Amino acid sequence: MTVVCLDLEGVLVPEIWISFAEETGIEELRRTTRDEPDYHKLMRYRMDILRREGLGLKDIQATIARIKPLDGAKEFLDKLRELTQVIILSDTFEEFAKPLMKQLGWPTIFSNSLKIGDDGMLEDIIMRQEEGKMKAIEALSSIGFRTFAAGDSYNDLRMIRKADAGCLFRSPVNILEENPDLKIFNTYDDFLSFIKENLK
Amino acid sequence: MTVVCLDLEGVLVPEIWISFAEETGIEELRRTTRDEPDYHKLMRYRMDILRREGLGLKDIQATIARIKPLDGAKEFLDKLRELTQVIILSDTFEEFAKPLMKQLGWPTIFSNSLKIGDDGMLEDIIMRQEEGKMKAIEALSSIGFRTFAAGDSYNDLRMIRKADAGCLFRSPVNILEENPDLKIFNTYDDFLSFIKENLK
Repeated sequence: MTVVCLDLEGVLVPEIWISFAEETGIEELRRTTRDEPDYHKLMRYRMDILRREGLGLKDIQATIARIKPLDGAKEFLDKLRELTQVIILSDTFEEFAKPLMKQLGWPTIFSNSLKIGDDGMLEDIIMRQEEGKMKAIEALSSIGFRTFAAGDSYNDLRMIRKADAGCLFRSPVNILEENPDLKIFNTYDDFLSFIKENLK
Repeated sequence: MTVVCLDLEGVLVPEIWISFAEETGIEELRRTTRDEPDYHKLMRYRMDILRREGLGLKDIQATIARIKPLDGAKEFLDKLRELTQVIILSDTFEEFAKPLMKQLGWPTIFSNSLKIGDDGMLEDIIMRQEEGKMKAIEALSSIGFRTFAAGDSYNDLRMIRKADAGCLFRSPVNILEENPDLKIFNTYDDFLSFIKENLK
């Protein structure tokens, strides 16, 4: 039995914070871990902006609901879920992912979560665990699953290498150059064909 | 973050082998672990009958596709999947579960699987691991999830007791009497309310 573990942002949906900045027009929210490597500091910065703008969880979710999955992502995921078990492993927050999961037909997602205040504002982030993606692969492996993992970013590499099989999907060129042994696919058709080969 | 783990047969769908015996009219397939406690011996008996009847995996899946989820099960599961992560933990085989998973909207299921011969006949069973339900709870707990588990049968008790919270659903009276400390629910509305209380 195989379980296929997929990164969310960049693989099935656009980068949520970038799309959110575009939807709201709040340019400051384009700041990413490339600009601020301390994730907790970055999230504090983002949460302060959201509070200043009066954007609570419900407003954020309504905005995220206008973000669409990547073209062809739903069809790809539907086909994959008919073939094997699929779990999305993401560093995002389940409250942010929810409007996108709805559009994708409620696949299972292992992510982090948010602490929401009585006023509906974001108060803090709750990380399920450090290295959550890789640890999930280890846990699934420990209960007898053959694991396949795919993603596009630095935070996906350890999960991909820990899994029994895996690949990159639409990664930027620097990740490709630093990981020449990993296969990369750029269309859902090629990606699905490669996964199918690995299910045999 | 909570993950809700549900047994399949008796909770969301009817007992598959009983329904299969009814659909096909093959009375011998009503034999269960109550008649033959050795599961591997029972499955060998069932596989021999299926081969004698010329029923390969595709025929079996076509028959199972005519079995419907329990009344209200899909609606219950849809509501639950909007609230939290859900994984079905079942001792059945993924190939048998598939036509039912399709009707339930492809929830994630951790189950066992079958070895299918070149002629399409069932050759053997492949258990993912012993005590698979309980071990899955342990694995999900190890990666930072709060776990909730529910089922109706003897093979669900260890999973329910291992989880952070749980209950019985439509259990037979002997299981109730032997486990007076466990709550039991008989309608999806009451069941969902109890799970919601445990998500807070």
